[in-house]
Amino acid sequence: MSTLLWQKDGVEIDARIQRFLAGDDVVLDREFLRYDIRASREHARGLAAIGILSAEEFARIDGVLSRLDGDVEAGRFVLDERYEDGHSAIEAVLIEELGDTGRRIHTGRSRNDQVLVATRLWLLDRLDALRALCVDCARVALDRAADEMLQPMPGYTHLQRAVVSSTGAWWAAWAEAFVDNAWRARQTREWIDADPLGTAAGYGINLPLPREATGRALGFGRMQASPGYAQLSRGKFEMAALEAVGAALLDVRRLAWDLSLFTTSEFGFVRMPARYVTGSSIMPNKRNPDAIELLRASYAPVAAARAEIEQVLSLPSGYHRDLQFTKGPVVRGIEHGLAALALLPELLRSLEWRVEALDAALEPSMYATDLAIDLARQGIPFREAYVQAADPARWAAGDAVGSLRARVSPGAPGAPALDAVRARLDAIAS
Amino acid sequence: MSTLLWQKDGVEIDARIQRFLAGDDVVLDREFLRYDIRASREHARGLAAIGILSAEEFARIDGVLSRLDGDVEAGRFVLDERYEDGHSAIEAVLIEELGDTGRRIHTGRSRNDQVLVATRLWLLDRLDALRALCVDCARVALDRAADEMLQPMPGYTHLQRAVVSSTGAWWAAWAEAFVDNAWRARQTREWIDADPLGTAAGYGINLPLPREATGRALGFGRMQASPGYAQLSRGKFEMAALEAVGAALLDVRRLAWDLSLFTTSEFGFVRMPARYVTGSSIMPNKRNPDAIELLRASYAPVAAARAEIEQVLSLPSGYHRDLQFTKGPVVRGIEHGLAALALLPELLRSLEWRVEALDAALEPSMYATDLAIDLARQGIPFREAYVQAADPARWAAGDAVGSLRARVSPGAPGAPALDAVRARLDAIAS
Amino acid sequence: MSTLLWQKDGVEIDARIQRFLAGDDVVLDREFLRYDIRASREHARGLAAIGILSAEEFARIDGVLSRLDGDVEAGRFVLDERYEDGHSAIEAVLIEELGDTGRRIHTGRSRNDQVLVATRLWLLDRLDALRALCVDCARVALDRAADEMLQPMPGYTHLQRAVVSSTGAWWAAWAEAFVDNAWRARQTREWIDADPLGTAAGYGINLPLPREATGRALGFGRMQASPGYAQLSRGKFEMAALEAVGAALLDVRRLAWDLSLFTTSEFGFVRMPARYVTGSSIMPNKRNPDAIELLRASYAPVAAARAEIEQVLSLPSGYHRDLQFTKGPVVRGIEHGLAALALLPELLRSLEWRVEALDAALEPSMYATDLAIDLARQGIPFREAYVQAADPARWAAGDAVGSLRARVSPGAPGAPALDAVRARLDAIAS
Amino acid sequence: MSTLLWQKDGVEIDARIQRFLAGDDVVLDREFLRYDIRASREHARGLAAIGILSAEEFARIDGVLSRLDGDVEAGRFVLDERYEDGHSAIEAVLIEELGDTGRRIHTGRSRNDQVLVATRLWLLDRLDALRALCVDCARVALDRAADEMLQPMPGYTHLQRAVVSSTGAWWAAWAEAFVDNAWRARQTREWIDADPLGTAAGYGINLPLPREATGRALGFGRMQASPGYAQLSRGKFEMAALEAVGAALLDVRRLAWDLSLFTTSEFGFVRMPARYVTGSSIMPNKRNPDAIELLRASYAPVAAARAEIEQVLSLPSGYHRDLQFTKGPVVRGIEHGLAALALLPELLRSLEWRVEALDAALEPSMYATDLAIDLARQGIPFREAYVQAADPARWAAGDAVGSLRARVSPGAPGAPALDAVRARLDAIAS
Repeated sequence: MSTLLWQKDGVEIDARIQRFLAGDDVVLDREFLRYDIRASREHARGLAAIGILSAEEFARIDGVLSRLDGDVEAGRFVLDERYEDGHSAIEAVLIEELGDTGRRIHTGRSRNDQVLVATRLWLLDRLDALRALCVDCARVALDRAADEMLQPMPGYTHLQRAVVSSTGAWWAAWAEAFVDNAWRARQTREWIDADPLGTAAGYGINLPLPREATGRALGFGRMQASPGYAQLSRGKFEMAALEAVGAALLDVRRLAWDLSLFTTSEFGFVRMPARYVTGSSIMPNKRNPDAIELLRASYAPVAAARAEIEQVLSLPSGYHRDLQFTKGPVVRGIEHGLAALALLPELLRSLEWRVEALDAALEPSMYATDLAIDLARQGIPFREAYVQAADPARWAAGDAVGSLRARVSPGAPGAPALDAVRARLDAIAS
Repeated sequence: MSTLLWQKDGVEIDARIQRFLAGDDVVLDREFLRYDIRASREHARGLAAIGILSAEEFARIDGVLSRLDGDVEAGRFVLDERYEDGHSAIEAVLIEELGDTGRRIHTGRSRNDQVLVATRLWLLDRLDALRALCVDCARVALDRAADEMLQPMPGYTHLQRAVVSSTGAWWAAWAEAFVDNAWRARQTREWIDADPLGTAAGYGINLPLPREATGRALGFGRMQASPGYAQLSRGKFEMAALEAVGAALLDVRRLAWDLSLFTTSEFGFVRMPARYVTGSSIMPNKRNPDAIELLRASYAPVAAARAEIEQVLSLPSGYHRDLQFTKGPVVRGIEHGLAALALLPELLRSLEWRVEALDAALEPSMYATDLAIDLARQGIPFREAYVQAADPARWAAGDAVGSLRARVSPGAPGAPALDAVRARLDAIAS
Repeated sequence: MSTLLWQKDGVEIDARIQRFLAGDDVVLDREFLRYDIRASREHARGLAAIGILSAEEFARIDGVLSRLDGDVEAGRFVLDERYEDGHSAIEAVLIEELGDTGRRIHTGRSRNDQVLVATRLWLLDRLDALRALCVDCARVALDRAADEMLQPMPGYTHLQRAVVSSTGAWWAAWAEAFVDNAWRARQTREWIDADPLGTAAGYGINLPLPREATGRALGFGRMQASPGYAQLSRGKFEMAALEAVGAALLDVRRLAWDLSLFTTSEFGFVRMPARYVTGSSIMPNKRNPDAIELLRASYAPVAAARAEIEQVLSLPSGYHRDLQFTKGPVVRGIEHGLAALALLPELLRSLEWRVEALDAALEPSMYATDLAIDLARQGIPFREAYVQAADPARWAAGDAVGSLRARVSPGAPGAPALDAVRARLDAIAS
Repeated sequence: MSTLLWQKDGVEIDARIQRFLAGDDVVLDREFLRYDIRASREHARGLAAIGILSAEEFARIDGVLSRLDGDVEAGRFVLDERYEDGHSAIEAVLIEELGDTGRRIHTGRSRNDQVLVATRLWLLDRLDALRALCVDCARVALDRAADEMLQPMPGYTHLQRAVVSSTGAWWAAWAEAFVDNAWRARQTREWIDADPLGTAAGYGINLPLPREATGRALGFGRMQASPGYAQLSRGKFEMAALEAVGAALLDVRRLAWDLSLFTTSEFGFVRMPARYVTGSSIMPNKRNPDAIELLRASYAPVAAARAEIEQVLSLPSGYHRDLQFTKGPVVRGIEHGLAALALLPELLRSLEWRVEALDAALEPSMYATDLAIDLARQGIPFREAYVQAADPARWAAGDAVGSLRARVSPGAPGAPALDAVRARLDAIAS
């Protein structure tokens, strides 16, 4: 590693300790580096606006950062152990290229607000991606719900056959779930859309930094005013972003559970395309729905990321090095969650129902609730109707589609209210 | 326990198993009972609207439920082991009082949507309470921030003295934090403000229930359309509400950490009123800031409640009895969190700074950053100015208030931007 | 509440704050009260041994505590809000009954070591109970394994049919699992079997307390020497006890998942006695395996208890009031876990296989692995044998029992090695 | 990636899906590869013993694996995306080098028992390392305890000054803590010391594998008999290993908290060597104890690893692909925990007390408990002695060393019982 920014003369640095201190910072910082570069350009522009940099100095810094950004994008510049972290790397490059001009870039900022602004911009982008993926999932589910509302399938409670339902009703549930998940992503994005740049080490700085202008240039919705609060929001905002990802992944887990059951020989409701299936190293006959199982397992890293961050956040106010440990989990948790969601739309589109299996699973007892309500409509008190309808002698094979059509409580297959869900989806999608 | 709603003739019920099955449902359901009664009244009104109940029958049901609600409020009716759960209790009372008319109340609903609507209404109220408490905390903090912006105190990073800060800047951080927390409560409330009543056991019902009207009467913002999604939202919405409480409690934990340090003899920055302090059973000299420590510990039950629910939610879609286990943690987590927050405004108001201790903790090194920036402003590249300012020979006792006034980056003590925070607070409070 | 032990003259106590401070301590302390009484008697005996109490004073204290213990056992004395906590209650009773003699009981002890010793004794008993329950589960499973080793059932991986297995092999897995769980309970019991009494508030005391003798009288395996470590072990030992309960409950969760699938109509492998089954409030046809689902959900409170405690344990050394919050989760988590386990032996004993369904689920592809190995035994390289055996043309209905008998790798149905498991079980049970 | 072991003709593999399926398996498997090679050699030896391999074939396989092991150790062979995972890599190398002989290696095993045995061996080694590190920590602490037992320092409860204590008593607490932690590592190692190799995919195999001999050769303490239990133990044993690491890290967190406070200007009790300290990018005056803060934060990844695994383990019995997701957290959690512990012995050794600051923090009130006990010894009932000693008029500057010497309850500074702790340490260390 090159000399450390803060290194004092005559103090020896212990390699093993530094390695523990740095952790995988340079690797993690690759995620954030382009955001850090972008924020550095706007910080430089702000310094120019208040006279710390001349116009020419700013132009040179802007040029170097622009080129660096391209190099990072193209893979020509890779963050590695030469640097303590991404923040130091940017300053080091500027000094190497521009000498004293580069030595001005850090005027009025700290690595504390630098990491905040870079991770904040990264989080905002990820929440946009989350919203888009949830919208995609919702759209597939909603289209299939509309097409299949009267395709009978068994409805379960307690995994026991309960009443006649439809594949369309099953899709409608996921459609509305992912509309809500997309909305949660947007809410969370709005909540954290606050610019921390210019708060320095948590106490502000004796410079009239043009924070409002800088924040606008970076696309932020508002300024995070208090430098102390900027520090307090580290980890807290990451937790909220993970919660938004987690809300979607909770649904993915339940969806994957359904598919895991539906693809057993015993249920046999669904046919999965071969590309989602793997084999066994020893059992020649196996076709395993690994993709579904990994989707089901994908809530775990998101939950674990939250658990890791909340363990760290038992601290007094102000910056502490413990907070560095929020980076790893937030990257792992969010990236894993988004990767899982990215597989989903195509997988949902490609599901094929085995209609004969769905039909075979409908049995006379599943019309008993319809019957009890019919009796109640004829004036028998429901609690008595229930007793009458509990008599297996009264159960008979029914008309599944007729049962679905008669299910007219709003939202049910006879009155599915998909337009309202689509209207919400369109509003969230835009 | 009286006969169970679903009990079949000739099937013996095992007491020990029933006790395990029921768990502490009747105790927990006390929280939800009045909400359940309210939803039952609107369900009955809906049944009247579609002709399942006559106007007179509805009036009698409405009367009994109104009286029951008063009895519950006054403590004259207490839910206990006579009933399997709160839902069964309501139906049992109606049948006892009204006979066959009471036997009609459950037409077209299931305990599954009944528990959903009661807990949903409870959650909405709790999120309102959360918002109000966060607003109170923010207001105290903001007022004190305005009063004390130029009262010097040491600013720390890594718990090491860093730069001069002010008690006002400390308050401003909490003020903005609790504005955000209040906002999060509102966002979450909006997100879950959807009516599940009328979705029955997750598959709708063969009755044209007037769900829109019922939902409006209950004050819901929208109808949760899909019956399947109503089931999927159990636990998921509870998690979101706990996240909102948790966001506030994360800040409480950090605030309590500050106060725990500030009340040590070593820091000695704060004087706590005697009513927040307890003694020791063996050490006659002790005055312990127990209230602060319990506030600090209060994030734990909120986090644990989320952990408990997310462990349960690894399930296929549809209702499963496992979901009953979401009730306990959500009540414990939210009630504990709100109780902690309720102590905070008065505690914050009553804090007294020990100004002489704050002053004594300011030392010459804490002006080094000001100096580095001053040098940078004079044209010395910052990285070089930093080296010059690192020389202890250049450190001298400074003018703390002058340092604060010069800190003019927006949000810092010289330009604290409290108006913007107050405007956001007022918007959230209303 | 009566006057507080530590209350200073002239200091007003705020009821709302005291309520928050006390939490549900008096309710939780009911769990520990008899252990606290027992430890108080031995503490008094120790005080007598070093001359702080006369023989007569000790006899009177011993008499009152003995009577109090009986009253608690018989429900004649109930801990309630008259007392700050269980510790204060014991002292208050002694003072009320014995005056100055009672005022001597707290000589040389603190509530800090008092709560440690009471919860430690409680934990030791609970770990004994855990071990006994695991032994019971293992015994049922082992007996059924021996009886049913050649009863064919499908073996699954990825929930896909894989190879022929047997119900006995299924039982053998649980048998060995619960032997290990019983062993973990014993290991953990040994690990925490250390006496903290006599460490006072974490710094020892200026009295030659006969700690070795007291510890022996209480049945402890060793003395916890360092007073500071006695404090550090609070929460840490609770976490270990919960881990032991959790290890068993992880297996219960997986077992309950199996049964949840096996009781579906689609699998249909198992018949549950009616006493484990409940009905629906709306669907007359439903028979729901609620007991299984609640067993499945019972890992959640155990995991949550650990999560709650570990959130609290981010503290400097020494006692902090935060630690009071370890009581609730440890009681809830352990008691819930043990209650779930207590249902298991009888439930396992009463399971009936539906043999015709098991047989119907065996299909020709499930002999492909046997075939591949047979080919390999004939000299065909396994990777090639695998390819040959993957050809459906080579699959045929097989002899399930023959397949099981031929499975002679140690531990498999043809060589099940149950004796070794039984030997370990007997060793753990004694 | 080369052709997949289980790939069927004519089935296209989708690259993006395969990437999600593989995850970072090949990277994680680097941790396990040498263990996998070792187990593969013993599996081959077993195949030779039962005639599946000729002596010559075994010798050739043994030779290739021996060379491969050396290549891995020397970095000449690196697992990468050419392979689906480490297991496939070993088979691929053997086939490339030995043709049909290599194609025999997988006879009678599955990747399921292969991954179990490799991770099991890895876990056993890590638990040995954990024990050794805890022993080192305990030894440093115990030596310092013996040296410093009468060096006064303030004792705290609730972070409030309570009684006189000593730096030796502080060390003695950590010494006993790490003796217990070392013991827990050993207990856990014993608990999981069971050989799963030869259980194949969870149902055994139709070959008389010499499992006992193979297990002995691999150094296992016992055979894991049931193939089904071998599968159930995946994740469960990882959780136990993480619990053992976590027990130690819980103490590290509390120790780091102490040091974080002790290195503040306000406490000022401890001097840290410069190599544990870093600086700030903006504040020239800062010396930050980053190493301590990262130690404090190091419980978080361990806790998160457990949280991640327990989220995954809500599954029926048998193998599911979800279980692949236990690898990442177990490696991250354990490696991070051990890296943190590895820093500790040297850090503890190098701590220097600032004795003048320790002395300055002792104040007259801290002798009040001594006084109360002295009064009690003179016959005043303790509860009355407590009231007398609570009078500040009776507090006076005391003799700190005299107070320590008089603290003769076993384990306290006047009778510290270090020999018993050292005896336990020596027993655990060997």
